[in-house]
Amino acid sequence: MSVLVVGSTALDSIKTPKAENPRLLGGSASHAAVAASFFGPVNLVGIVGDDFPKAYLDLYRKHRINLDGLQTVSGKTFHWSGEYEVNMNNRRTLATELGVIENFNPTLPASYQKSPFVLLANISPSLQHHVLDQMKKPKLIVADTMDLWLNIALPDLLRLLKRIDLFVLNDSEARQLTDESNPLVALKKIHRLGPKYVIIKKGEHGAILSSPKGMFLSPAFPLEKVMDPTGAGDSFVGGLIGYLASQPGSIDSKLPRAMVYGSVVASFCCEDFGLKATTKATRAAIEKRVKTLAKFLKF
Amino acid sequence: MSVLVVGSTALDSIKTPKAENPRLLGGSASHAAVAASFFGPVNLVGIVGDDFPKAYLDLYRKHRINLDGLQTVSGKTFHWSGEYEVNMNNRRTLATELGVIENFNPTLPASYQKSPFVLLANISPSLQHHVLDQMKKPKLIVADTMDLWLNIALPDLLRLLKRIDLFVLNDSEARQLTDESNPLVALKKIHRLGPKYVIIKKGEHGAILSSPKGMFLSPAFPLEKVMDPTGAGDSFVGGLIGYLASQPGSIDSKLPRAMVYGSVVASFCCEDFGLKATTKATRAAIEKRVKTLAKFLKF
Repeated sequence: MSVLVVGSTALDSIKTPKAENPRLLGGSASHAAVAASFFGPVNLVGIVGDDFPKAYLDLYRKHRINLDGLQTVSGKTFHWSGEYEVNMNNRRTLATELGVIENFNPTLPASYQKSPFVLLANISPSLQHHVLDQMKKPKLIVADTMDLWLNIALPDLLRLLKRIDLFVLNDSEARQLTDESNPLVALKKIHRLGPKYVIIKKGEHGAILSSPKGMFLSPAFPLEKVMDPTGAGDSFVGGLIGYLASQPGSIDSKLPRAMVYGSVVASFCCEDFGLKATTKATRAAIEKRVKTLAKFLKF
Repeated sequence: MSVLVVGSTALDSIKTPKAENPRLLGGSASHAAVAASFFGPVNLVGIVGDDFPKAYLDLYRKHRINLDGLQTVSGKTFHWSGEYEVNMNNRRTLATELGVIENFNPTLPASYQKSPFVLLANISPSLQHHVLDQMKKPKLIVADTMDLWLNIALPDLLRLLKRIDLFVLNDSEARQLTDESNPLVALKKIHRLGPKYVIIKKGEHGAILSSPKGMFLSPAFPLEKVMDPTGAGDSFVGGLIGYLASQPGSIDSKLPRAMVYGSVVASFCCEDFGLKATTKATRAAIEKRVKTLAKFLKF
């Protein structure tokens, strides 16, 4: 079944002590859509400016991502630039230029409105609402967010939590939202805000799912070299919803395995800048890492 | 089969914003011996002063820990005091009084020297060597350490690594020892220093084993309330070696499951101050958590 992905489509410039990587393909929707594309059809909703490289459109197309909902308008594509410290653990934002994304208010193509799986990847909650308003009885609605929206759009975000099935956020966002540092207690508090399923991402330490069926501790795929974790969370949730949409069975029963697939796609993302490593991955390489991960967990 | 445990036997005074807990039973050997005792016979090597409460000796005995190698001498028991900050994440040492442990140089009882499983819990590497010198062909030697010995006794510790089978250390110690922040790379470097098996502990994020059979990612048992993590690492390694000693089969094949048992015993340790919660645990309660953890990992 098809997955609709809305989020940011961006150009990311990432500096490290060793190299500059200007104007990489980035954005939550780019990472999530490519991640989901390994499992089945993806309908992308986004906006880019007339400076958006044709090579990146070709890259989406190579992944058979439907671009009917990707607007190209006059102006500049959303641009984020950041810098890593020597140990690659800390990243700081150098500049954020919203460009054409600032006034994005998409009308979905009719063919998109019946996508049974909806991923509201990280973008403003008002835009997430706007997309959701146009959907016709989706089977599963997943939303991601970031600290910025907790700071400047909390009422919108809280309203969104009552409309979605699965909320995905990282550990520091969970702490900020619930004022609770223990993830198990935070998960309970977030359920009370609406979502039936909640996942707290912990980066290299994996992720925790809380669902009516219980808890699942998803491992991260261990890597010897992390080049650039930008987009790893988006890849995780993209891989997760892509897997869910591609498999028969109940959401409850599929979710743990979907998280493992999401973790594996995220591991590829971390191995090079931007989408360089993810777009070189294959379904076979993903299956291989899932098997390896299962071996790492056997006792 | 029996497990010999050498390490510190101490009184710990732990302050929190809400309570003072003076002179709790503590020390690496106390935590590790109690943890191992759930699985089989334990021979404790340690030293206490004449101020050591009889109630604590009774507590060891309640756990059927052999005290033939526990010396009681005139003077003060090793005493550590520390304080937790409000969020319980940071602990600082207020005082360390070595007392009778300063000149500890035990001669092992003959009955101890044939213990097939040896745990050199955290104590000075020279004492770990001294105990090892007296052992007669042990089947498995496990050693733990702490940052202090990396700072003041590194040559002794490096010599020890060539004599042991399994080295257990936490992530910050691994970083300090190898100058490498990626745990997978650190594991490789530590193998080159001697041990066939290496485990890096990551606290609430579990532990990683590297062995000739491959890698195992051991989860931590998720807790809603962490009261006092002091001794959790010692409980982990005590539970681990206790399980290994109690089961048939090769070390390679048993190690992953032994880590899960160690994690579960450590989870009890964290739920109250000192050994209060661990000493209330039962083998049945441990088995129940192991089953729960297996469920949390199923995909």
